[in-house]
Amino acid sequence: MWVALDAMGGDFAPQATIEGALWAVKEFPELGVYLVGKPEILSPLLKKKSHKRLKIIPASQIVGMDESPIEALRNKPDSSIRKAFELVKAREAKAIVSAGNSGAVLVTALFVLGRLKGVSRPAIATVLPTLKGYAVLIDSGANVDCKPRHLLQFAYMGNVFAERILGYKSPRIGLLSIGEESGKGNTLVKQTHDLLKQSKLNYAGNIEGRDFYQGDVEVIVCDGFVGNVCLKLSEGLAEALMAMMTKEIKKHKLAVLGFTLARPALKKFKRFIDWRERGGAPLLGVNGEVIITHGRSDAKAIKNALRTALGFAKQNITAKIKEALEIETQSQKAQDSER
Amino acid sequence: MWVALDAMGGDFAPQATIEGALWAVKEFPELGVYLVGKPEILSPLLKKKSHKRLKIIPASQIVGMDESPIEALRNKPDSSIRKAFELVKAREAKAIVSAGNSGAVLVTALFVLGRLKGVSRPAIATVLPTLKGYAVLIDSGANVDCKPRHLLQFAYMGNVFAERILGYKSPRIGLLSIGEESGKGNTLVKQTHDLLKQSKLNYAGNIEGRDFYQGDVEVIVCDGFVGNVCLKLSEGLAEALMAMMTKEIKKHKLAVLGFTLARPALKKFKRFIDWRERGGAPLLGVNGEVIITHGRSDAKAIKNALRTALGFAKQNITAKIKEALEIETQSQKAQDSER
Repeated sequence: MWVALDAMGGDFAPQATIEGALWAVKEFPELGVYLVGKPEILSPLLKKKSHKRLKIIPASQIVGMDESPIEALRNKPDSSIRKAFELVKAREAKAIVSAGNSGAVLVTALFVLGRLKGVSRPAIATVLPTLKGYAVLIDSGANVDCKPRHLLQFAYMGNVFAERILGYKSPRIGLLSIGEESGKGNTLVKQTHDLLKQSKLNYAGNIEGRDFYQGDVEVIVCDGFVGNVCLKLSEGLAEALMAMMTKEIKKHKLAVLGFTLARPALKKFKRFIDWRERGGAPLLGVNGEVIITHGRSDAKAIKNALRTALGFAKQNITAKIKEALEIETQSQKAQDSER
Repeated sequence: MWVALDAMGGDFAPQATIEGALWAVKEFPELGVYLVGKPEILSPLLKKKSHKRLKIIPASQIVGMDESPIEALRNKPDSSIRKAFELVKAREAKAIVSAGNSGAVLVTALFVLGRLKGVSRPAIATVLPTLKGYAVLIDSGANVDCKPRHLLQFAYMGNVFAERILGYKSPRIGLLSIGEESGKGNTLVKQTHDLLKQSKLNYAGNIEGRDFYQGDVEVIVCDGFVGNVCLKLSEGLAEALMAMMTKEIKKHKLAVLGFTLARPALKKFKRFIDWRERGGAPLLGVNGEVIITHGRSDAKAIKNALRTALGFAKQNITAKIKEALEIETQSQKAQDSER
C-alpha cells in the first residue's frame, strides 16, 4: 500500500521527511512511500539509506511555507505538493501526507481531487487526547470564515470519523461556545446550535473551552479560526507548563532527584501532550485520503503521519464519509418533502 | 477605601463571598467591603465573624447565573448586582466585585455607570502569566461579535492597562490569529491588522495560539468569543494535565516518593496555572472600576479579586484610560485633518 509523501514540505524537510519515511517503512511492513520532490536533493540523502519500499518521484518545484496558496497552484504545476496529489488522483498512491504550506495543500486538494458530493467546505479533523479517551476537533484550520451550514457538515464528517476511526458508537457532538446554555455564543454558534438540535446527530449541546479535554464529547465542532487557535494554544500551553515546571524543579536538588524517580510515570503524560505523537490530521470532505501534518514536523511526526495515512487508506475513510453523507442527504430530502 | 461586593453572586455564594471578604479585610488594612445582598441570609453567616470593615447593604433580589441579563436588569431593580453598582455610581464605593452572572454585570455596568467617551464596547481584560512575565488578554468575554474598530479600541485600552497596571513601558500589542504573516486570519482579524498597523501603538503583528504563553507581547487582542474560549481552554487544559500527571504518578511507588520530594518546587508552578490567584478581571471602558471574577470563585478567588479592586481604586485606572483615550482621539483627529 503506497502513500505519496511531499518530501519537500515542512520546516525540516527534506531531512525530516526522508528520516520519517525510512522509519515508517521499517515499522510498517505493508507501507511503501513515494518521496515526491527534487531528485538532485533527495537522491544523495537517500544513498546510504535506500529501501525497496521508498521510491523517489520527481517534482521540480517547491512551494514555500509562506507562499500564496492560489499563486502556488497557478504558477507551480510541477511542485512536490501537486505531484503528490496527482499520484493519488491516478490511484498510484492511496493517500498523501504533507507537512508543507497547508493552504497550498488545501487548494491543491480541491483542484486535483475535488470535493465529495454534498460537501461545500472540506475541513481538518484533529484527534485530541482527553481524560477519558479521544475527541475529534473539526475544523482545526481549513476554513476561517464559516456559515452555520458549514459547521453542520463538519459535525456530520466528525461523526463518521469518530465512529469509524475512533470506534465510538453514536459519538456525542459538542459545539464549542462560551457557555453551556443555548443562548450563549456568537451569532455563528447560536445559529449552528439550532441546526444541530434539529439534526439526527447525537448532539450534546454547547461545550466550553474548559470541557475540551474532559472527554464528555467525542466530536468538538467549531470554525477553523477558533479551532486552529485552540489547537496551537494547547500545544503552546503544554510546552510552557513543561518548561516552567522543569525550571522550578532545577532550582531544588531534592526536586531533581524526585523528578528523576517520577520520570517513568511521566512518559505517558508526555505522550499525552506531544503533538508529534498525533500522526497528523486528515482533511475530510475531499475525494481522497489527505493527511496534513505540522509544519514543524520532525522525523517522528512524519512517521506517525504516515501511520495515520496507512490506516485511512486501509479503512477507505473517504468512501465511508461519502456514504454517510449520502444517507444523510437522502434522509434530509425525505424530511424536507414530508414537511 | 470601600469596595462593593455582590455577596449573592457566584456558584458558591454567599459562603465564598463572605469568607473571601473577611479574609480580604484582614489581609488589606485599607480595605472596607460592602456586602450587598439579602440581610436575612448574610447576617446569620456574619454573626460570629463580624468585622468593623464589613458592612451589609440590603438588596432583596438575586440574579441567577443563567438568567437573561436584559430581563434581570429590567425586572430586578433591587438585585445585589444593581445595588452594588449604585454604590459605585454614588461614589460610596470605589469599585465593585462580582462573581455573578457576567452578562448581567456587563449590562448593569453600562446602564448604571455608562461608557467612557470614545468607547463603543467595554471589554474584559484578563492578566495571564507568561514565561517572561504577564500579558493582558482583551477581550476575554464581553463582546462575542466584533468589528475591527472594536478590536482597535481593545488594543488601546489593553495598552493603558499594561502600561499603568503591569508597568510595561510601550507594551507590545499582538493580534491573535492563525499565522504570523499579515495575510493570515479571518476577515475580522485581517481588517483589524490593517487598523493596528496604522495606529500609534507598539504593534508587534499577529501572534498564534502557540505564542500565547511565551511572553513576547504584553497585550493580546481578540474578540470576546475567541478570548473566552482561550481562557477557559487554558484553565481546562492545565487542570486536565495536572489530573493526568497525578494519575500516572500514583501508579508508581517511586514516582509518588519523587513527586513528594519535588512538591516545594511545584508550588510556584501551581500558582502559575491557578486562575484563583489571578484576582478577577476588570471590565475596561465603563465609568468606574468593575472587577468580574469567575463564577466558580471560592473564598481565595474572591479575596484576590478584592485585592485587584483595591489596586484599581487606588490607581484610579478608569481616569487613566479616559485620559489615554482622549489623547488618542485627539491625535487621531489631528491625523485625519492633516490628510
